[in-house]
Amino acid sequence: MAVGKCEFPQMHAVAGIKLGTACAGIKQTERDDLLLIEMAEGSTCAAVFTQNAFCAAPVHVARKHLERRPRYLLINSGNANAGTGEQGMLDAQSSCVEVAALHNINAEQVLPFSTGVIGEVLPIEKIVATLPQTQSNLIEDNWPKAAHAIMTTDTFAKGYSKVIEIDGHEVTITGMSKGAGMIQPNMATMLGFVATDAKISQANLQQCLSLAVEQSFNRITVDGDTSTNDACVLMASGKSTLPEILEDSEAMRIFQQAIQEACMYLAEAIIRDGEGATKLIKIKVQQAINEAEAVQVAKTIAHSPLVKTAFFASDPNWGRILAAVGRSGVEQLDVAQISIYLDDVCIVEKGGRAAAYTEEAGQEVMNKEEISVTVILGRGQVEQQVLSCDFSYDYVRINAEYRT
Amino acid sequence: MAVGKCEFPQMHAVAGIKLGTACAGIKQTERDDLLLIEMAEGSTCAAVFTQNAFCAAPVHVARKHLERRPRYLLINSGNANAGTGEQGMLDAQSSCVEVAALHNINAEQVLPFSTGVIGEVLPIEKIVATLPQTQSNLIEDNWPKAAHAIMTTDTFAKGYSKVIEIDGHEVTITGMSKGAGMIQPNMATMLGFVATDAKISQANLQQCLSLAVEQSFNRITVDGDTSTNDACVLMASGKSTLPEILEDSEAMRIFQQAIQEACMYLAEAIIRDGEGATKLIKIKVQQAINEAEAVQVAKTIAHSPLVKTAFFASDPNWGRILAAVGRSGVEQLDVAQISIYLDDVCIVEKGGRAAAYTEEAGQEVMNKEEISVTVILGRGQVEQQVLSCDFSYDYVRINAEYRT
Repeated sequence: MAVGKCEFPQMHAVAGIKLGTACAGIKQTERDDLLLIEMAEGSTCAAVFTQNAFCAAPVHVARKHLERRPRYLLINSGNANAGTGEQGMLDAQSSCVEVAALHNINAEQVLPFSTGVIGEVLPIEKIVATLPQTQSNLIEDNWPKAAHAIMTTDTFAKGYSKVIEIDGHEVTITGMSKGAGMIQPNMATMLGFVATDAKISQANLQQCLSLAVEQSFNRITVDGDTSTNDACVLMASGKSTLPEILEDSEAMRIFQQAIQEACMYLAEAIIRDGEGATKLIKIKVQQAINEAEAVQVAKTIAHSPLVKTAFFASDPNWGRILAAVGRSGVEQLDVAQISIYLDDVCIVEKGGRAAAYTEEAGQEVMNKEEISVTVILGRGQVEQQVLSCDFSYDYVRINAEYRT
Repeated sequence: MAVGKCEFPQMHAVAGIKLGTACAGIKQTERDDLLLIEMAEGSTCAAVFTQNAFCAAPVHVARKHLERRPRYLLINSGNANAGTGEQGMLDAQSSCVEVAALHNINAEQVLPFSTGVIGEVLPIEKIVATLPQTQSNLIEDNWPKAAHAIMTTDTFAKGYSKVIEIDGHEVTITGMSKGAGMIQPNMATMLGFVATDAKISQANLQQCLSLAVEQSFNRITVDGDTSTNDACVLMASGKSTLPEILEDSEAMRIFQQAIQEACMYLAEAIIRDGEGATKLIKIKVQQAINEAEAVQVAKTIAHSPLVKTAFFASDPNWGRILAAVGRSGVEQLDVAQISIYLDDVCIVEKGGRAAAYTEEAGQEVMNKEEISVTVILGRGQVEQQVLSCDFSYDYVRINAEYRT
């Protein structure tokens, strides 16, 4: 199931970024599950990773290798290589060694990524045997196949592509993401890959990515479970005619905005594909004292199983939203200052049921596929938004059946 | 659905505590939904209430009246009188006035309690009209009817009763609780009422209750949603032959233990009746540095929808438990020190899959109705336990249909 339109867009190739896929048969044998991405020499690459303490072996390795001017990304679906102890670290490292040997580079220039079931040993021999095939398939115009190869419980491939103009030069931004469950990214989501032909230093690229991820992937949640494998990568090949994007420049500002837009689009696609999701819920918290409390309130609503099942039932059971705000842990919350809206229907004012509210008006909003919840705290100036989805029978079915 | 044996025990009457029920037709017309409890003159009464900022009108009123030597408790099911603004406060207060008028006492000697749907105005006229009937039904031997009258989505009534001996004197402890959803009590649960014939000061009684609740009701969770109406009350009539229980005495120690046992039993009964629950899960966190981090890890596991659906499926998908521990937010967690057990089967050692672990051994535990998860952090000496349940199709059904 997926909420709203989730068509895969036309994906503009990014000069200097090649992708090759193949079927290694890691979990299933009928579809591509291995992806190799090659960045042209001179490319820069930024990344953010999960903050889960039990982060997967490939996350450890990729985080370490990021500083060594990476040239290749190796991504497999079907197995997360997480909770696999020392064997997992050896497997992640040896996959880098094999890619390096094929391309005559240093193993530290390869970043490994894995997504799939936790706790099973990575079938490294299958991956090694399939590597030459991914290599021979490397072409720039290959994003659709790549976006499909990284899917797990996703029901559709998630892509974004745009050609923007900076100082009269065309710059291409193309990216993909995957994910449907174990989604409450904390630093990034499992997995996002965005590429551009802009020329930009590693430090500036990292700054762009970190800002963008904080407002996009770090503001979505399906089930509150932060994955062991979250990662988001931003690659810049420098092949555009635009001169290098420098710190504090107008070009940097435009570029950062464009990257953020890409990340927000790809993050929203993950929520639209949230496991069992039938509704997309945008939770806005306004007039908070700071970003932290705004996100805290929004996520408490987003994670409440009672709120999520009410949305699934299209039931304007707003008492559950109110109860979630009340238990969110904000210090000295004055409920008499709080208003709550479903789309533009005021349901709560001064902490109680709004005088003009009618069940019919609430029901009309709840029947929609995309709904916004706005909570006005009346404490300050800060606004934050979190995207989430509802909780359905299918969420239980998907996660009760996932390994079988 | 309910997990394990949930038989209603034989309830010993408590001298000095009378209960009367009646049907006010608040939500349904075919069963008792109103309960009046009378405490004999000279009784003491302790209580703890929800920490939800949006606490219900009766919670505000009861908290204020608690200091005024309460003589009556008025409890209705079918309507929470929460999110009802000023009208809700007026209704809660006028219910106290009506009880006081009937019994010739002060309105401040009445504690009101409500449980049910949030956001609908309390039908106070129905309650007032039914009060004389609850009064005429007041008898000491009436706990079973009382335990049924306070139920909402509960599938069975929850009772506890025991006669203990202190210094050669018999002391009776009898109590009841209700609750199945919106359960992550924070100070108490909605609703627990325990009575004893011991003689004990209000201050000492409050201390006993607070200690007991912290280790019982505050250590259970069904869905992570803290109710707006949680409350737990401990009444002591002083009718036992035992002399007054004094601070720091051996009698106080025995009594506190007995109260804690009652609260733990009643709290566990709520989890056994968790909405849609098919399994009872005891999550023990050992070798933590302090109580806070032990509870934090246990509750992160307890709230994870992925862990809960895996238990529903009897799937030993331990990677989800590991991922939950990793995202629990414990500072400087060294995963290499962590072991995890399902009952006595070691699944994780040194942060990775245990060498001797087999899927068959894990499956055998998961097939049980009652399962313990033990997480050994290897950081300190503190142990804490949280009780929870699984997440089933029925949880979604119950909460998608609750208001219809």
